[in-house]
Amino acid sequence: MAARRKLIVVSNRGPVSYARDDSGARVARRGGGGLATALRNLLARHDVTWIASAMSDEDREVAREHGGAAFEEQARDGSSYRLHLVEHDAAAYERFYTVAANPTLWFVQHSLWDLAYAPDFDDVRHDAWSAGYVPVNEAFAAATVAELDREPAAAVLFQDYHLYLAPGMVRRERPDLLSSHFVHVPWPDSGAWSVLPDDVRRDVHACLLANDVVGFHTRRWSRNFLRSCADVLGAEVDGDVVRHAGRETRVTSHPIGIDADEFDTLANDDVVLERERALVAARPELIVLRVDRTDPSKNIVRGFRAFGLFLDRHPEFRGRVRMLALLDPSRQDIPEYADYVAAVEREAQALGDSVELRIADDFAQSVAAYKQYDALLVNAVFDGLNLVSKEAPYVNARDGVLILSENAGSHEELGAWALSVNPFDVSGQADAIHTALTMDAAERRRRLDAIRAHVREHDLGEWSAVQLADLDRVRSRP
Amino acid sequence: MAARRKLIVVSNRGPVSYARDDSGARVARRGGGGLATALRNLLARHDVTWIASAMSDEDREVAREHGGAAFEEQARDGSSYRLHLVEHDAAAYERFYTVAANPTLWFVQHSLWDLAYAPDFDDVRHDAWSAGYVPVNEAFAAATVAELDREPAAAVLFQDYHLYLAPGMVRRERPDLLSSHFVHVPWPDSGAWSVLPDDVRRDVHACLLANDVVGFHTRRWSRNFLRSCADVLGAEVDGDVVRHAGRETRVTSHPIGIDADEFDTLANDDVVLERERALVAARPELIVLRVDRTDPSKNIVRGFRAFGLFLDRHPEFRGRVRMLALLDPSRQDIPEYADYVAAVEREAQALGDSVELRIADDFAQSVAAYKQYDALLVNAVFDGLNLVSKEAPYVNARDGVLILSENAGSHEELGAWALSVNPFDVSGQADAIHTALTMDAAERRRRLDAIRAHVREHDLGEWSAVQLADLDRVRSRP
Repeated sequence: MAARRKLIVVSNRGPVSYARDDSGARVARRGGGGLATALRNLLARHDVTWIASAMSDEDREVAREHGGAAFEEQARDGSSYRLHLVEHDAAAYERFYTVAANPTLWFVQHSLWDLAYAPDFDDVRHDAWSAGYVPVNEAFAAATVAELDREPAAAVLFQDYHLYLAPGMVRRERPDLLSSHFVHVPWPDSGAWSVLPDDVRRDVHACLLANDVVGFHTRRWSRNFLRSCADVLGAEVDGDVVRHAGRETRVTSHPIGIDADEFDTLANDDVVLERERALVAARPELIVLRVDRTDPSKNIVRGFRAFGLFLDRHPEFRGRVRMLALLDPSRQDIPEYADYVAAVEREAQALGDSVELRIADDFAQSVAAYKQYDALLVNAVFDGLNLVSKEAPYVNARDGVLILSENAGSHEELGAWALSVNPFDVSGQADAIHTALTMDAAERRRRLDAIRAHVREHDLGEWSAVQLADLDRVRSRP
Repeated sequence: MAARRKLIVVSNRGPVSYARDDSGARVARRGGGGLATALRNLLARHDVTWIASAMSDEDREVAREHGGAAFEEQARDGSSYRLHLVEHDAAAYERFYTVAANPTLWFVQHSLWDLAYAPDFDDVRHDAWSAGYVPVNEAFAAATVAELDREPAAAVLFQDYHLYLAPGMVRRERPDLLSSHFVHVPWPDSGAWSVLPDDVRRDVHACLLANDVVGFHTRRWSRNFLRSCADVLGAEVDGDVVRHAGRETRVTSHPIGIDADEFDTLANDDVVLERERALVAARPELIVLRVDRTDPSKNIVRGFRAFGLFLDRHPEFRGRVRMLALLDPSRQDIPEYADYVAAVEREAQALGDSVELRIADDFAQSVAAYKQYDALLVNAVFDGLNLVSKEAPYVNARDGVLILSENAGSHEELGAWALSVNPFDVSGQADAIHTALTMDAAERRRRLDAIRAHVREHDLGEWSAVQLADLDRVRSRP
């Protein structure tokens, strides 16, 4: 058991959001989601202050009641921590979230821009940076500095693509800062970064290098980051260390795991069991499952086409198999996302009865389906990690086969036991679906057992521990 | 003066194409175009056999008359060379040209795919490779082997993205092959290559490495190639040498130049002077020029938007300046290209009188406009080199200012004397147009003189000479 430490976690979305229930009483909603779950894991073991955006009206109300300062909160398991909700200027936050972070950075990092036509760095997008992303990061930096004033020895853990500038801003105020930044999305090649104006892409890289450690889920994203630091900044790269502006940053890769105990429990949760009974009662002989957010990076349209092509090639499977697509609606206020959902719906419609498309936020339904699939299709265009590819096999009860994109981060860990597919190769995905559904039982069992053992062994606790170990290596540096 | 050598040049498009004139007589058309011009330069100095596709009906007729073998031809300057026209299966060639080479490889190499939606590697695209690109490359390889049978000591110069597989096929037959391959388009980061199925991208890289030398226009494309050889094949990279499959390949970068003498002559050509008089008679005070093929990589739509934004910001220029866009129609049988022209026309229309759009193949008109521009906009999304950025300043007579995309290959050479722009930064391009049109005369002159001196010094002859010098280095290797 590691020693209890003083930590400051900084992420856009916090572990809790406040609302009012029908009676007008304040309720705290402790949401799911990979990042929140991953970091919640730290609360029980360490002395944590968590800095996050006040997102709901009630969040802002709570923030104001505490005068913009941190206050005590309880995690689901009763552990207490300090929560610091940052209230942003509403117009700045809108620009930050719906233009600069999504789609701009998200699309750059997942290689989704249709570069002949988009994006345009016009006044709107320039403003989204200078009057959106920059001030929101400044607000996070100010909150971090305030918390460091209280606990100067605390280590800071910045999270993800919303906060690339904050570490640089904090480092300028606190040169003795000890910090890491974990990037949960892919890091693309340096060519992809050329979509951003020179000053923007330089700031992104330079401010990330203000951390002592920058972490990614895979060696591929780490390698790309090392190269783009050299290409964009002319930084000196020596193995996994980058030297820039008189400092040294270590670049690491640690794939995140799932909370295996939580999934053991979830698999037998009453609501999940109820959903599962309904699913079993209506299920066809075989289910090909996909579970995703409705995000263009998830490659849902090509997945449907591949399933259609599989049925065309193997008509004997018609009527015996259905594709079940459980999609959590995502960022529908952003036009690129709304357009994508429309394309998903058109493609599903074209396949008629052989596809069942459900667009809803229903995690219990997803877990029920995790248990019941015969083949799981994870064909992401690019994906930082992809938790579904770990969660679903872990609870699956039918020796289901994982079909996994070579561009999903988890492919580095699970590729040996999955059917690997190229996300653009619709024909190859159709073949993989057939291979999965005709694989003999012993082989399916062998592969699933191997994935399960890996997921159990490399769970969330390991990921949190290595984040802290990386920081210890820095602290103990002469 | 270098010694006369035995060379075999292999390119999809040859230096001449045959047709019938109105009287029914056969005519040979010696076309322009950067590649043909560049290589034609070799004909006067060396013993050249040129292998190219029979493209027109009359080309095929000529090929048949010679029983598919090489025959004597004359270049424009009277030099004689041997021409070997390869007749392809029509269906295979169609798949090769309009699906596999364009748009698939072209879009991969210029980062133009809208990856959420396209491409799909479905049966059509797989067939375009296996029953198009592969057999067309086999036909080129067979022709090359036949010519090597005649001249075993000849060095082979493969050209561009149409022929990635041929070197590997020839090497298998002739292990003592001495060959180079020059890639005239950008080499993207290895992430972009993930669009192709694994076997395809491996074959592309492995067959290119069957050459002794692989050349690019810039260090940036060379660097990307070295990295993607490591990433895609796991090849060993040591400086600019790649070791793979027991062989060594040297990777070089030599930007191509223009034939300065030819442009000295062209600038005073009768047709050019006639076009120039008409242009001068109707010209506004200031001309912002662009000259391109109608290719999505050229970024024509954003160029119009930038010009519109410039006029909005500086209305005092309205009526004084016009944007002249001279566009050579390109690949209109490919849907992605036809769609792009429609978008170009819509955007031009939206700007009304302030834009003059001409879509025509009229090189004399382009040269006339080269002489008359005040600002030249070259804002390509990505471009292997961009010859316009060298040709136009070389003949310009108004101290015109070059606005140059940082993603054009020529930026490595000319960036210091151009106004650099990010191709996605419409706002930055609008500012650059204003800066160009308000720059003082001495500064404009200084920059233009520097570009001109560079272009004159590093002309086409230098490029051809270094290609051969690279091969000599291999030949003299112990």
